[in-house]
This record gives sequence, C-alpha cells and structure tokens, in this order.
Amino acid sequence: MQRRLTIGVDVGGTKVFGVVLDLDAGVVDEHRATTPEGSDALVATISDVVAVLRRGARGGDVSALGVGLPGLVDRSGTLRFGPNLPGVVELPAGRLLAEATDLPVRVDNDATCALWAEHRSGAAKGADDAVLVTLGTGIGGGLLLDGRLVRGANGFAGEIGHMVVDADGVACLCGRRGCWERYASGGALGRWGREAAAAGRAPQLLARAGGDPDDVKGEDVTAAAVEGDPGALVVLETFAGWFALGLANLVHVLDVTRCVIGGGLVEAGDVLLDPVRAAFADRVVAPEHRPPVEIVAAELGGDAGAIGAALLAGEEPLVPES
Amino acid sequence: MQRRLTIGVDVGGTKVFGVVLDLDAGVVDEHRATTPEGSDALVATISDVVAVLRRGARGGDVSALGVGLPGLVDRSGTLRFGPNLPGVVELPAGRLLAEATDLPVRVDNDATCALWAEHRSGAAKGADDAVLVTLGTGIGGGLLLDGRLVRGANGFAGEIGHMVVDADGVACLCGRRGCWERYASGGALGRWGREAAAAGRAPQLLARAGGDPDDVKGEDVTAAAVEGDPGALVVLETFAGWFALGLANLVHVLDVTRCVIGGGLVEAGDVLLDPVRAAFADRVVAPEHRPPVEIVAAELGGDAGAIGAALLAGEEPLVPES
Repeated sequence: MQRRLTIGVDVGGTKVFGVVLDLDAGVVDEHRATTPEGSDALVATISDVVAVLRRGARGGDVSALGVGLPGLVDRSGTLRFGPNLPGVVELPAGRLLAEATDLPVRVDNDATCALWAEHRSGAAKGADDAVLVTLGTGIGGGLLLDGRLVRGANGFAGEIGHMVVDADGVACLCGRRGCWERYASGGALGRWGREAAAAGRAPQLLARAGGDPDDVKGEDVTAAAVEGDPGALVVLETFAGWFALGLANLVHVLDVTRCVIGGGLVEAGDVLLDPVRAAFADRVVAPEHRPPVEIVAAELGGDAGAIGAALLAGEEPLVPES
Repeated sequence: MQRRLTIGVDVGGTKVFGVVLDLDAGVVDEHRATTPEGSDALVATISDVVAVLRRGARGGDVSALGVGLPGLVDRSGTLRFGPNLPGVVELPAGRLLAEATDLPVRVDNDATCALWAEHRSGAAKGADDAVLVTLGTGIGGGLLLDGRLVRGANGFAGEIGHMVVDADGVACLCGRRGCWERYASGGALGRWGREAAAAGRAPQLLARAGGDPDDVKGEDVTAAAVEGDPGALVVLETFAGWFALGLANLVHVLDVTRCVIGGGLVEAGDVLLDPVRAAFADRVVAPEHRPPVEIVAAELGGDAGAIGAALLAGEEPLVPES
C-alpha cells in the first residue's frame, strides 16, 4: 500500500526535525525541537514533534511515521547503540513511538533514510548502486545496491566511518586505532586545519579563526580554500587523499557507481570535491577497465533524513504491522 | 525455469576444473585441464572440458553452462581484467563460449560462484548475510546480502583484497600501498613466515622449509603451528591480527553474520581460525550490542567454484537469453 501523507522525523545530536510529506506535493509542513538527554525525554520530544505536525493544516490525515536515528538501529526498530545521543541506549523506539502516537512506525538509521531521499529525488537519483557518505563529527554511511537499501543482518550496515584504513594510526573514540573517520570526517578536516595553523603553515586560516589555532574548524578550512588561501588548499589536499582512500575501499568492495557526499561541509562544493575526485582517480584499481565513479554533493541538505524517513514510512513494512 | 543438469567450470591460474551437476544428486562427473596462456587458448580449453563432460554418461542432457573466472567479470559475461590469467584481458567469455558450446552460458567471478555453492550446501548455509574470503596468492571475495549475491553495478563487487588497511604500508601489485591482501592472504602468511625464519625467530619453521628462509610458504606456517611450533604460532598471531582487521571492516560496512574462509590454508582448521576469532573480538565496534559473528572454514574446498557456477547456470538469466 502506498501511503500518500506521512511524517518523517530525523533525530540528530542537537535537534529533532520533523516533516509532513505529501507523496504528490513534497514537504508540506515542518517542525523542530532541541534534542534532550535520556531515552524517555527523547521519545517524548519525538512524540511532541509528531503531535504538533498532526495538529497542523495537513497533518490530520497522516497514515504513518518514519524515524531516522543516529546509530545502530536493529530490524525491530530498537536503537541498540547511539554514541551521539547521551544517555540513550537499547531504546525500543519503534514500539514506544507506535504506542505514543498510535501510528504505524518505521525506524531506520539516519543515513539510510537520507540516502533513500537522495535516491528518490536528489543526488542519487538514477543510480542503483550508490553510497551516501555524510561528513560530520564522524562519518555516517548509507548503502544502496541493485536499487535496494542495504541494512545488514542486524540493521547495522553502513558503519563506514569505522573502517580501519591506517592500522596503527590515530586513536578513535570507539577504542580502536586508524578508523577512517579520524582522517576524513568534518571533525578530521578541522584537526588537519588546526595542525597546519599551529605549525604556521596556514596564516590566513589562522586569522579567519581569530588567531587561536585551537579554534579552527572544518568549515574554516573550506571557507578559506574558497578564497584561495594556499595553506587551506594544502590542508584540503591532505583531507582529500584520506577521504578518497576510503571511497576507493568502498568502491572495491561494493562496486557502486556513485558516491553522494553529505553534511554541512559539502556546501563548499567543488573546492572540496575536486581534490577528492583527483585523489580518487589515483586510488582505484584497474580504472581503465571500469566506468568512472561519480563523486557528487548531496542535494537535499539537512532535510534528507526526515524526508527519507517519511518516504520509507510510506513504502516499507512497519511496526506493528510487520 | 529450474534446470536439472548443468555444467560448471572454474578457471584458476593453474587449472580449469569442470563438473556435471545434477540438482537432485550433486556432482555426477568432473574433468580438469591445465590453464593455458592467452584468450583463444583459454576459450578452447574451457570448450574442451565442456565437450569431454558432455560426451560422458551424464553429460548428454546438460542444459546450461556456468563459468567462474578469476578477476573483474562484467554483467555481460566479459572478463575485463584478470591479473592471474596471463595474456587474457577484455575477454567476452560468455558470448564466445555460447558460440563454441551452443549452450546458454552464465559467467561470474569465481569467488561469487564459490560463495553460492557454500550458501546452498556448505558453510554459508542458513546465513543470508555472509562473505566468502578466499586465501590464496591474494584475497578473493564473494558477498551475500539479504540472501542475494552482490555483484555490483559492473559485476566487480567483492574486490576485498584491495581494501587499503595500512595507508602508507607495503607496496601491492596493483600499484598502490597497504592493500589487505599484502598482510592477510596465503601469500602474506608465507611472507610473515619468511621474515620470522630469516630473523631466527622460528627455527622449527626454518627446518621444515629445508633450511632456506626464502622457501617458507604459508602452508609451512600452518603445518608447523599444528605441531605446536612456538615460532609459527607467533607468526600466525601476526597474520590473524591483520586478517581480523579486514574482516571487522567488512562487518562494519556490510553487517554480515558469517565470514566463510576458503582457500587451501583453511584445511589447517582451528589452528588458523582460532587466533582470527580472538583477534576479531578485539576489533569489532560495540560487540556488546550485536550478535557474535561466526568465522568458519569453507566446506566444499576446491570444488566450490565449479559447483557454484553450475548452480548459477541452473538458476540465473543466461547469455544469450538475458
């Protein structure tokens, strides 16, 4: 059954963002709230966002709820592990939200939701084999193979940020060393920038951050690079090499034809992506025997997760129906 | 349509091995030949193996041919790149073999074929999300997700041996550095063994190889370890750490529940796999929130590729039908 009007909610580390999606007309309403601490408060906040949207002009006929959560979401809709949501662990979100809203509910990983939205109406449209790579504090991932989302046996697929690319490398929050996200996330770009600024290799970048190298962020690097700062461009080259290395790993394992890059940093556009494309070309095996892989910016921005959750709520088996 | 009697041929670097498979009774005949050099000779040899099998008692009613090739096989049945087959490149094997044998033909990557056989009647039975990792000179890979083989957009999925795990590491034949197969293939186990023998850290291993450290092979390491040689056990620990690191990468990306390990080395059994299991447990993120991953030996040995090719010929769309 195709539902025509659904709600999608994307839960992030700082905000809970909900939309009402009309399958024929797109997003017709939206609402956001601050992410609280703890499981009970989180369920209450999501329920409140849903309630506000249902009281709106177009919310009365909503037939299902989709929710995207950051972390390991199992196939029953339970968040098993979500390091970016303090105090939240082993949360049966699907069941609790179905009870709280009296709607059928679909819960998924946030990057999986975002990829589905990009596939339906954004940068992954027309590609049946694609990855979504979101650059934030870490690296999130969504996988699409043969036109189908890949969730994995437990629902945990796409934890691409914890692919080890440098065996004895930088320590990661996960307790191991050398995870890709330590080198190629938005947070890592900031770290490369801080190192360059502290070493005197990026004076313009340092000035942009107010003179304290500790204040340099990933966005400062891309902004300085847009203005042609040579120091920032060198930092981006370093970042691009590491980022491309991980993309090549994914292409070798999965043979995807498109890599969609999401997260706030991609608003910088080609100043970020061109060095990645150049570095990728040097890192793929047997390039002369395979069609080129497209590396493109996500198109739906911060709305993708909520839109994708709403789309999936309209299409997929739901709790408690499934 | 389910075909009842098919031929499967597995092409390796040294031999071409064919079987007649009866879906009800299993393998009813087999034949092998030496792998020749060059495309024309290879097609002729495969055709000969097929002809011999069809002249046999059970070959007359064969309805389709499946072929497993080592390398990048595209969706049209062309071998685009096969570094282990000298003189063979851009070979339209599906079309040429269909013409030569007058049978409908299915061509696939050899590891993909082997995984399908293990899934149907071997070590991957009952697992809908599994990887096959074959240890040879390099590392080959087959992927099964949601019960379906993953071939990728071009047919090139599963090139897991070229996942970079050590960014500035050992040079690989592919022209890059730090590929997993440089650290964790059968060939790599031999290299770890040679290093230990040359450094005087594995005297029993050195004696087993006849006194010349350059002659130590991966099989010598596992054989010495079976006998309790402390030097060989330390070598296996090193190998196991690297092997487990790559398995953990695959589990984080794909969320498979079973890793089936193939190749001649796995005949050593638990002396090889127990250290891998122990090392894996230290390398998986959030183990307390996910069911354990099974790491098991392949069961069908060297026959898996041919059996899988024959199974796929009985089940999948074929050239020229597709």
